[in-house]
Amino acid sequence: MANSIWKNYPQLGEQLDLTTNFIHKMVKINNLEISSMIVNLTSEGKMLRPAFFLLFSEFGEDRPKDSELIPLAASLEILHVATLVHDDVIDDSPLRRSQPTIHTKYGRRNAIYAGDYLFTLYFELISKHLQSNTDILKNALSMKKILIGELDQMLIDFNVEATTEMYFKEISGKTAELFGLSAQMGAIVSGANQEVIERCKNIGHDIGMAFQIIDDILDFSSTSQTGKPVHEDLKNGVYSLPYILGLEDKNHHLIEILSKNHLTADDDQKATAIVVDNGYLNQAKDIAREFTDRAVIEIEKLPKKRSQEVLKNVVKRLINRIK
Amino acid sequence: MANSIWKNYPQLGEQLDLTTNFIHKMVKINNLEISSMIVNLTSEGKMLRPAFFLLFSEFGEDRPKDSELIPLAASLEILHVATLVHDDVIDDSPLRRSQPTIHTKYGRRNAIYAGDYLFTLYFELISKHLQSNTDILKNALSMKKILIGELDQMLIDFNVEATTEMYFKEISGKTAELFGLSAQMGAIVSGANQEVIERCKNIGHDIGMAFQIIDDILDFSSTSQTGKPVHEDLKNGVYSLPYILGLEDKNHHLIEILSKNHLTADDDQKATAIVVDNGYLNQAKDIAREFTDRAVIEIEKLPKKRSQEVLKNVVKRLINRIK
Repeated sequence: MANSIWKNYPQLGEQLDLTTNFIHKMVKINNLEISSMIVNLTSEGKMLRPAFFLLFSEFGEDRPKDSELIPLAASLEILHVATLVHDDVIDDSPLRRSQPTIHTKYGRRNAIYAGDYLFTLYFELISKHLQSNTDILKNALSMKKILIGELDQMLIDFNVEATTEMYFKEISGKTAELFGLSAQMGAIVSGANQEVIERCKNIGHDIGMAFQIIDDILDFSSTSQTGKPVHEDLKNGVYSLPYILGLEDKNHHLIEILSKNHLTADDDQKATAIVVDNGYLNQAKDIAREFTDRAVIEIEKLPKKRSQEVLKNVVKRLINRIK
Repeated sequence: MANSIWKNYPQLGEQLDLTTNFIHKMVKINNLEISSMIVNLTSEGKMLRPAFFLLFSEFGEDRPKDSELIPLAASLEILHVATLVHDDVIDDSPLRRSQPTIHTKYGRRNAIYAGDYLFTLYFELISKHLQSNTDILKNALSMKKILIGELDQMLIDFNVEATTEMYFKEISGKTAELFGLSAQMGAIVSGANQEVIERCKNIGHDIGMAFQIIDDILDFSSTSQTGKPVHEDLKNGVYSLPYILGLEDKNHHLIEILSKNHLTADDDQKATAIVVDNGYLNQAKDIAREFTDRAVIEIEKLPKKRSQEVLKNVVKRLINRIK
């Protein structure tokens, strides 16, 4: 059953269930344990990327049948899960969606290959279902940008001279590109005109930017809801927007703390206080809101279809998480 | 400059140099350190897969121009290097081709993403250069089999009931599939007929099987030439053919040793003696020879082209490594 966030949209929920089933049929490896872990990972998420793809596929003149849409919706979730599996190895995360991660149960080896396998499934699906249109295929391959973004992130890790510009570039690659691709692909397969396609891509990208900033803010503010140790990223030299705003503001206390070789729990607490007391956290919230505001304005310019309202509601609910 | 193993084949050497240059132009990431490590990795190998692709592309009626062949030759090496980068993370190998591995210098994170990035480049190249022919594309996607093979390997790790059948299946996925694909892709793009295509694929696959078995045997026999600690695989529960032959023979002493939780240097030595004294090592050599013998017989059935002789020489040199 589709995630409860889609409960008010039964048609979309049904399409997402079809997408989940399709993914399960695609994952065919003899290794049943790993196979079932992949199936779990693709069953319990919010399926945001397939959902956006499906919603944006209403804006063209010629919406394809479900049988054509579902494999592409599935491919976007598969690509997302591929990156999650590798991210968990990289961060050595013990849990994902309250379940042990693949590398925790079956070792790094199987987790890395499972991610690689999912990448391959993604390419197989898009090559098969987008073959007639090389333009879309080229865009679908834009996942390369995602990885280039990840590789460039090294440039800002442990860098107390990191700027918001560097941060935006990084989260664009890490998150927003795939949201933009999902929206754009939906518009393209439904035969939308070039202006609408471009608008959909930008809306998807803005939502993705907001999504990542909000995720960072929630991570910053949460204590234990997510099951992650607090501010683990900080210790690994990965600075999220609230910190970056402090660094860019040349806040000496913050720079001093983050320049240390090993951060203690006390350092972490002090850095948190600086970020809150100097308004960097609120600035980060305002920036997230700018992205969702712009997305809403652009959504309103799209053709009048039912999914226009759905999208606006989804975006509002997203930004309300950090109210 | 192409690896010295190709010094007697100047035309092939030249094509391989073009392939290396092409790869270097493809690798475009802002992160210059990682970019240069990838470039190094793709400059210093034997380029066996591109070489086989180029050699087999002589057997059709209609050999494409270099400008069409080079991107595909490059894609095969890029795919190979992608798997090497991930394998090194998995095995935590400090060195590759006498250079520090990417994860050693820049961490697991960058190594995993660098591998992912190379996978993407591979798909980009084959989608672009094979788009007109969906059959080849489907075959090129057979790299999925490689990963399924890797994931299935878990079934034989630390398994003292592993059989040669399981081992052959595993190295088929791990190594021989990509050799088979390289040969087959060469035949297909040159317009060979179905019988020749099938033969090329099988030859490539046989060479790949022999290559992996020989590699395992050299690993077993070498002490320090390769720079790897001896029999590291054994400690990790990864059994190569000489051991598998002993296990399948139900050699009690060997089973007893490999069933231990932690292998000491003494255990390693005893296991080695068992494998040598009972003729398992020689049996493994014979099996490698069966694969190269069959490859040579099949190569002789191919159309009479210059690369027929080259291929026979390459295969002979391969098997002579374990004489």
